[in-house]
Amino acid sequence: MIKPLGDRVVIKVSEGDMKTASGIVLPDTAKEKPQKGEVVAVGSGKVLDNGQKVAPEVKVGDKIIFSKYAGTDIKVDGTDYLIVRESDILAIA
Amino acid sequence: MIKPLGDRVVIKVSEGDMKTASGIVLPDTAKEKPQKGEVVAVGSGKVLDNGQKVAPEVKVGDKIIFSKYAGTDIKVDGTDYLIVRESDILAIA
Amino acid sequence: MIKPLGDRVVIKVSEGDMKTASGIVLPDTAKEKPQKGEVVAVGSGKVLDNGQKVAPEVKVGDKIIFSKYAGTDIKVDGTDYLIVRESDILAIA
Amino acid sequence: MIKPLGDRVVIKVSEGDMKTASGIVLPDTAKEKPQKGEVVAVGSGKVLDNGQKVAPEVKVGDKIIFSKYAGTDIKVDGTDYLIVRESDILAIA
Amino acid sequence: MIKPLGDRVVIKVSEGDMKTASGIVLPDTAKEKPQKGEVVAVGSGKVLDNGQKVAPEVKVGDKIIFSKYAGTDIKVDGTDYLIVRESDILAIA
Amino acid sequence: MIKPLGDRVVIKVSEGDMKTASGIVLPDTAKEKPQKGEVVAVGSGKVLDNGQKVAPEVKVGDKIIFSKYAGTDIKVDGTDYLIVRESDILAIA
Amino acid sequence: MIKPLGDRVVIKVSEGDMKTASGIVLPDTAKEKPQKGEVVAVGSGKVLDNGQKVAPEVKVGDKIIFSKYAGTDIKVDGTDYLIVRESDILAIA
Repeated sequence: MIKPLGDRVVIKVSEGDMKTASGIVLPDTAKEKPQKGEVVAVGSGKVLDNGQKVAPEVKVGDKIIFSKYAGTDIKVDGTDYLIVRESDILAIA
Repeated sequence: MIKPLGDRVVIKVSEGDMKTASGIVLPDTAKEKPQKGEVVAVGSGKVLDNGQKVAPEVKVGDKIIFSKYAGTDIKVDGTDYLIVRESDILAIA
Repeated sequence: MIKPLGDRVVIKVSEGDMKTASGIVLPDTAKEKPQKGEVVAVGSGKVLDNGQKVAPEVKVGDKIIFSKYAGTDIKVDGTDYLIVRESDILAIA
Repeated sequence: MIKPLGDRVVIKVSEGDMKTASGIVLPDTAKEKPQKGEVVAVGSGKVLDNGQKVAPEVKVGDKIIFSKYAGTDIKVDGTDYLIVRESDILAIA
Repeated sequence: MIKPLGDRVVIKVSEGDMKTASGIVLPDTAKEKPQKGEVVAVGSGKVLDNGQKVAPEVKVGDKIIFSKYAGTDIKVDGTDYLIVRESDILAIA
Repeated sequence: MIKPLGDRVVIKVSEGDMKTASGIVLPDTAKEKPQKGEVVAVGSGKVLDNGQKVAPEVKVGDKIIFSKYAGTDIKVDGTDYLIVRESDILAIA
Repeated sequence: MIKPLGDRVVIKVSEGDMKTASGIVLPDTAKEKPQKGEVVAVGSGKVLDNGQKVAPEVKVGDKIIFSKYAGTDIKVDGTDYLIVRESDILAIA
């Protein structure tokens, strides 16, 4: 898998509902609705102004909810992925 | 329940009036009116520029007032929730 | 009374003139005119980038002048209040 | 006199020329012209990101030049004043 | 090769698909699609507010994905290159 | 002379060419052209976020080049001056 | 030569191609194309928020590539120069 830089995260977007330990998580149909997916790669973290690197809160395999309009689409070996910043991830489901 | 990231908070929005220890709290009908709700999940807190993590002021079960236009709608097991940043929460009622 | 978060302050807005130790304080009728009120609740203070919490300069009972367009209206037990950030408060009268 | 908060300063605006130790200081008639006045109250100073409070450079009684469009008008016991931030004050005359 | 300053990186843009250890990486055809390339020169790194210099995560020879609209075109000895900031690089392929 | 605050500098604007140790310095006639002048008063310096005050690089008597659209016009004892921030000064001629 | 302030650099713009150790460096003809030049004077460096001064990466005599729309034109003894911030310099050729 590709290796995202800094605080970036690679996500495999989920099309349908997402069954997780929290139950069935379904983004609302409101126009600002979030999306669901699974983390497939995580960057080494954001560098703070004091030079300290902050480890990401998410890890590979986490089911997540993220902002709908975030990120950049990419295709690897025919599969679609999305690269977002960790700050675009709202919650772990 | 889903686990919000960083300084995010998951809220169950209240439809009617909200009776609290402060009395009956009713958002005004002005166009910039806030909303009421109850905290159902809290992130681990915001990371400051010096790497320090700030614990949220709110906790699960708090009745709160928050900015009307804040946050992202989400549905878990058929129930509607809202994910906001803690800075969008105005007060504990 | 509700408990404002961070650097927020709850104000009871004054309708008429405001007699204080400073004399009769009357906002000018210019279009950018400030408003008068009394502090009824104060948050725990703003968290700085170094993690330090700054105690608010105002306290409950202070008569204050604040920016006209600041804040969010709220009603508690039938009484109108305004929630503002302390930086929107210009002076103690 | 009212007590300004933070880095705010209360000014009594001067209408005509201003004779000072520097000579007769007269704002130019250009469209971005500054204004003259006298400091009548000074806040406790601006709080920096490291929590340090910076004492204002101006003191009560100083004749000053300030940005024309700065500040908020206020009336105390029938006299007009202006509340500005110290950063809106250009020079001591 | 020219020496980029600060956190800048010189890239040789790839025209077709890019075979890497991650597989065949193909930017999606969406309108915000990223681009592929190979790093040919790396600056000494970004200087933080505390004076510390952050070493770049990418090195010469890395196959990378970067934001489509980033950077400045340049031609050296007849070959086209692109100068971008490291923050415009999304991932190492 | 008036005393500028913070990182401000008072300049006497030069109308014609300016002969200096560097030779005859003449701002170009391009539309974003700079202006020439002589420093007549200097503030105590800018206060950084850590509370440290940075001594200005310019001193009274320096011939300088500054941004054309910078600053505020002022007249003292019938003479025109300009108050600018030191960051608006490009070079010492 | 004039002495630029802070992180500013004085450049003699090159009109034609630029032969350097890197080869013939020719800015592309794209509309956002950079420009070439030679450094003729360097400021003492940028002051960081912690009061530390960062020495410039470029020195007098360096052949450089810089952003096309950066800087201010100036004429000294009949010769045209450009004053830019070091952050507008992309690379040393």
